[in-house]
Amino acid sequence: MVNIAILGFGTVGSGVAEVIEENRQSITHNAAEEINVKYILDIRDFPDSPFADRIIHDFSVIEKDPDVKIVVETIGGAKIAYEYTRRALMAGKSVVTSNKELVATRGHELIEIAKQGNLNYLFEASVGGGIPIIRPITQCLTANELDEIYGILNGTTNYILTRMITDGAPFEEILRDAQRLGYAEADPTADVGGFDAARKICILADLCFGKSVDPEKIRIEGISGVTLEDVEYARRLGCKIKLLGRAYRLPGGRITAYVAPHLIHKQSLLSNVDGVMNGIVVHGNALGECMFYGAGAGKRPTASAVVADVIDAVKHMKARKYLGWDESEPGYLVDAEDVVTRWYIRTGSGLAAIGAAFGDLRLISFPGEYPGAGPGEYAFVTPAMTGRELEKLTAGMEIRSRFRVL
Amino acid sequence: MVNIAILGFGTVGSGVAEVIEENRQSITHNAAEEINVKYILDIRDFPDSPFADRIIHDFSVIEKDPDVKIVVETIGGAKIAYEYTRRALMAGKSVVTSNKELVATRGHELIEIAKQGNLNYLFEASVGGGIPIIRPITQCLTANELDEIYGILNGTTNYILTRMITDGAPFEEILRDAQRLGYAEADPTADVGGFDAARKICILADLCFGKSVDPEKIRIEGISGVTLEDVEYARRLGCKIKLLGRAYRLPGGRITAYVAPHLIHKQSLLSNVDGVMNGIVVHGNALGECMFYGAGAGKRPTASAVVADVIDAVKHMKARKYLGWDESEPGYLVDAEDVVTRWYIRTGSGLAAIGAAFGDLRLISFPGEYPGAGPGEYAFVTPAMTGRELEKLTAGMEIRSRFRVL
Repeated sequence: MVNIAILGFGTVGSGVAEVIEENRQSITHNAAEEINVKYILDIRDFPDSPFADRIIHDFSVIEKDPDVKIVVETIGGAKIAYEYTRRALMAGKSVVTSNKELVATRGHELIEIAKQGNLNYLFEASVGGGIPIIRPITQCLTANELDEIYGILNGTTNYILTRMITDGAPFEEILRDAQRLGYAEADPTADVGGFDAARKICILADLCFGKSVDPEKIRIEGISGVTLEDVEYARRLGCKIKLLGRAYRLPGGRITAYVAPHLIHKQSLLSNVDGVMNGIVVHGNALGECMFYGAGAGKRPTASAVVADVIDAVKHMKARKYLGWDESEPGYLVDAEDVVTRWYIRTGSGLAAIGAAFGDLRLISFPGEYPGAGPGEYAFVTPAMTGRELEKLTAGMEIRSRFRVL
Repeated sequence: MVNIAILGFGTVGSGVAEVIEENRQSITHNAAEEINVKYILDIRDFPDSPFADRIIHDFSVIEKDPDVKIVVETIGGAKIAYEYTRRALMAGKSVVTSNKELVATRGHELIEIAKQGNLNYLFEASVGGGIPIIRPITQCLTANELDEIYGILNGTTNYILTRMITDGAPFEEILRDAQRLGYAEADPTADVGGFDAARKICILADLCFGKSVDPEKIRIEGISGVTLEDVEYARRLGCKIKLLGRAYRLPGGRITAYVAPHLIHKQSLLSNVDGVMNGIVVHGNALGECMFYGAGAGKRPTASAVVADVIDAVKHMKARKYLGWDESEPGYLVDAEDVVTRWYIRTGSGLAAIGAAFGDLRLISFPGEYPGAGPGEYAFVTPAMTGRELEKLTAGMEIRSRFRVL
């Protein structure tokens, strides 16, 4: 029997305890050991929970108990979670987490500590919730030079964008609805502003390209600038607007990583990943393209990934799993404004300004348009250029929207 | 350095050698060892190949060379491949394969031999080509009770069905085209008849549900009965016709598995898996649904999966990977004709016969129909029932097509 402790009895932590209880038989079979939740650390009591007798409030009990071999960290954030993770590893316990903020910001350091102790620090649940993605990258695609990874990494924003498309209702209205339904938090900044997706794309870039990418240093653009006009122009191009986290290799071994809304053609499978679902596309030089799809958040899907890591940690109690990345050198990360892409532009400036900036372009038609009576605005897709080049070209123009085209 | 031998220098075998050469640096990093192709066994010589000097014709050289730690079997079929796999394992070498026929028919036995020798027998490439699916099931979804797995497992048939939909050309014509383009073999029976998909769904069922399923014992229906009328009726239902391999748990611990064309609603992501691509959906009680998508065949994608297994075998040289399933007891597999589903029916029988058999049903409209002047045939979807119940109800009727609705 292997004893574990869960830190934080919130949504994910309680899901972990439940899944271990509910699937005890198959989990024991898969781990070749029974897994027992010995302690659950939380500041609160849960007198009505079936796990009430495991609740404790003092981390040092776990730290000092040599019986506890694996610690599940589902506290979130990078403060207490960091301290407890560090202490657990120093005390010779493997750690499994769903904490994307901590992995994205301190992952390299924590993996090094784990390595020194021949311990595992596993974080499958930190990206894509229940979707297997970390392990496929680190174990299944190892024959490839990976060139690119991108995806819909945040369910809240995908839900909002999907409903803007299907319902034709504006961002603010859908956001209020999403909050009512529990798909968005009272303070939606981390999701809507793209910060959650940023942590995830940094973890994916760390693993795919082997060097640390700091989420504080990448360009992050959320979805609050996406309007119903943009949705309609995109539709007329045969596209949908999706918030993507994206990272890819550039010539010379450098990479770029960023989060931004993109126009994606409807024929691509990723554009059909709707609602709260997540989809992640990986491109390798042998494999070509593959995609992973599923629930990117939620109590049970996330617990599914956490518990799979616990099982893996049990199986690798004596031999550490290979997982990790190096520190990156200055200049490794190229600013996303300096890489070349095609841009979708919506502007209040007239044809003379557009023609002067871009030459002859095909404009996207819009229902409000009549021959000889312009709609007061134009939209179009530019040739490939960097964001900075675009800035220069459009200096003085009234730019209403500016999104990348995948 | 770890020495390996490749058995069979055909499409996949030569892809394996090429990928190992091309990605030498990253593969060495990922495996933490250099991987060297010491021998390539084939009956032919390849004087113009860069690997000409490794070609040998006598398996016993490999068998007797203690330097060879891993054997890659890309011969195909279940005869010589079986013999060599067995002998390689008996000689203390781990074996990696892309051979679905061998894994589906003798996998249990070969895994047992590997187990006894503390060796690995790995077969990620046997299902879904380059798509990571075996390892996600056996390592990432281990916290779940898996209920169901199904998918588009054969690229040739998916290519044909996709082009029937997009081009409106009949099966035979597209098949000839596919043969010309190299997407279908001169003898297309294994693909078109559903036998290739059958082997793959059996391997997936073995892994998901833990007991052996014999591809000789499951119902297999190919795509040669799918007509353009069916494609059009499906379209009017908002569906596409796809060939699925499918397996799921039934109450009491039994399972069913089969291969057959299905009507799938266009809103499901799987229906958007088109052309030669594969997509596999897994359902677990914690995770919910997730899907894996990518190239299900081809030289480099398949080699990508084989080489990942080689790397995994290198990493697990001393500790065998957990992978395998038990023998199944009689009665474990339930005949797919005995499980309940809704059916799409196209019939030349008239309304009286339909009404007598099914009561009042909604018929699917068709472009050739005019009020009061029937098209000479009708199509509809039945309530859920078993295939045998359907047989009885439709006895005496002229049934032109009969497909399951997912």
